[in-house]
Amino acid sequence: MSGPSRWTLADGRELLFFSLPGHIPAPVADLRPLPPRDPEPSELRFDRATGQWVIIAAQRQDRTYKPPAEACPLCPGPTGRSSEVPAADYDVVVFENRFPSLAGDNGRCEVICFSPDHTGSFAELPAEHARLVVQAWWHRTAELLARKEIEQVFCFENRGEEIGVTLAHPHGQIYGYPFLTPRTAAMLAQARENRIAHGTNLFADLLAAEVADGARIVARTQLFTAFVPYAARWPVEVHLYPNRRVHNLTELTEDELDDFAEVYRNLLGRFDRLYDAPLPYMAALHQYRDDGEQADGYFHVELMSIRRSATKLKYLAASESAMDAFIADVTPESVAARLRAL
Amino acid sequence: MSGPSRWTLADGRELLFFSLPGHIPAPVADLRPLPPRDPEPSELRFDRATGQWVIIAAQRQDRTYKPPAEACPLCPGPTGRSSEVPAADYDVVVFENRFPSLAGDNGRCEVICFSPDHTGSFAELPAEHARLVVQAWWHRTAELLARKEIEQVFCFENRGEEIGVTLAHPHGQIYGYPFLTPRTAAMLAQARENRIAHGTNLFADLLAAEVADGARIVARTQLFTAFVPYAARWPVEVHLYPNRRVHNLTELTEDELDDFAEVYRNLLGRFDRLYDAPLPYMAALHQYRDDGEQADGYFHVELMSIRRSATKLKYLAASESAMDAFIADVTPESVAARLRAL
Repeated sequence: MSGPSRWTLADGRELLFFSLPGHIPAPVADLRPLPPRDPEPSELRFDRATGQWVIIAAQRQDRTYKPPAEACPLCPGPTGRSSEVPAADYDVVVFENRFPSLAGDNGRCEVICFSPDHTGSFAELPAEHARLVVQAWWHRTAELLARKEIEQVFCFENRGEEIGVTLAHPHGQIYGYPFLTPRTAAMLAQARENRIAHGTNLFADLLAAEVADGARIVARTQLFTAFVPYAARWPVEVHLYPNRRVHNLTELTEDELDDFAEVYRNLLGRFDRLYDAPLPYMAALHQYRDDGEQADGYFHVELMSIRRSATKLKYLAASESAMDAFIADVTPESVAARLRAL
Repeated sequence: MSGPSRWTLADGRELLFFSLPGHIPAPVADLRPLPPRDPEPSELRFDRATGQWVIIAAQRQDRTYKPPAEACPLCPGPTGRSSEVPAADYDVVVFENRFPSLAGDNGRCEVICFSPDHTGSFAELPAEHARLVVQAWWHRTAELLARKEIEQVFCFENRGEEIGVTLAHPHGQIYGYPFLTPRTAAMLAQARENRIAHGTNLFADLLAAEVADGARIVARTQLFTAFVPYAARWPVEVHLYPNRRVHNLTELTEDELDDFAEVYRNLLGRFDRLYDAPLPYMAALHQYRDDGEQADGYFHVELMSIRRSATKLKYLAASESAMDAFIADVTPESVAARLRAL
């Protein structure tokens, strides 16, 4: 696929158009009177008590909050006066977040619009459109990993008001963290210990064990495997691994990228068929650099939902929030069986 | 203070009455036709990918969910047919949770009712009543720490429907975990490193630094100090430390226990004056054994709220939930200034 077309928003932010074959982006000037950007909108603080970085982004309290559909900043804006995307149409766009938690030397926050349609979801995208989103993730991962201030590139989607999503338009986000996130660091520490003790890759071992067991497998192709993990923390949780270990999207072959888009979309479709209403979920792409302390990483996606029944949500109360001790209300095997059958 | 009076519920669970001076508990027989208890209601699974234990408690999906006030299982039940507390009145009671996440060899889950009144809150308790709750925590900590299957005793309160509380009656919970929780383990690892590198206690160092700085102090007595931590993760977060290091409640003197009850209640009162409505919060007592890998611990309370403004909540979406990378919307110094002024 060809690279994106680049455009610049009124306050200097970058906007990238990723287009289906034959589609040519036609952006117009962004005429909004946007205030200048804060070059350092956040502060990083290290918590010595836990060894974890915390991002203090005190300028974001007034960010856009549940606008009406006709004022959606993610819909195409042909006038150049109403939207983050000044164009009559687009396929997939990525732009720098107007209210970033991370910017400048502290990293980068981007928004990715999956589709120009205000309604719908990733699961409902046509196959070639889902593949285009994957291509955009691939591109952003490559470009952001090349920046010296960025340690980790995190493509993710929060979907559903139940988890705090304030814009209904189908979209995801891409964070370039300037530090290794705490959960990633914990996983790499486990992988390092496993390599020293057994000489093998921990995540490859876990994947092989899931395949051998079979009770928690949700879907499996020649190239990818999806399963509910043995020690799932969330009421609905699925991990999707390529069968061949890579560190991040940029190491996947074209065939693997094609299959990834298809299996990923398939899993999200199963999520939405679990209940009568669309499932609130978080989708997290765990990506690693291919060297140094990240070399033991294994690219995978973790999909999670807080919905524990048709009418009830799982809340992260004190056991989870204060002690990181998760309590699951369902067995991973029963969740896998339900998802497999859908 | 004298010890509690013990009673037994219809299905064999323990019930303990803690009483104000001059009050004598008068329980009646629990006549409810309760089903027998599941001796092993949960399974512990170790997540090799993160090095963390997860509790799978699949029997709890049907637990009591937002009953009407007249059916509250925590109000006094003089008939012995309607409540978890078969008595016409009580001051503070503790009983084994009917729907435990942990029981038998896997630990223990207890409920603590702060008051017989269905409405109200910890912050509104009379001083001697708050002190009685502290006495109950003290007792449960001593008794549960003496059990060989319990590694960590966690007294906590979840308050507010916004964080998933399903019973409005003022109450807290006490967990006896059979393992060291992940967050506690992370903190102890930091403390161990600090001791080896500097020969000092990490938490004592952090407390001294907060006192010397002063910008984040919320309240301070001769015996206790409350502050918003430098790297606060939550929109409202206060840590309360005794000025003298102890491992858990059982090492505090009577004077310290008195002051603890008073400062703790004072802080929760400030929480409720932040906005027009009571603040949803989590209160977490971090307690440690006095030996082995827990010896570097420093007893303290962490108070947290997800309310980030009068109308908005903080959601733990993908950055927090998938990567443990917290993004705060306010500076710790501004929160401390607000709480100090209340």
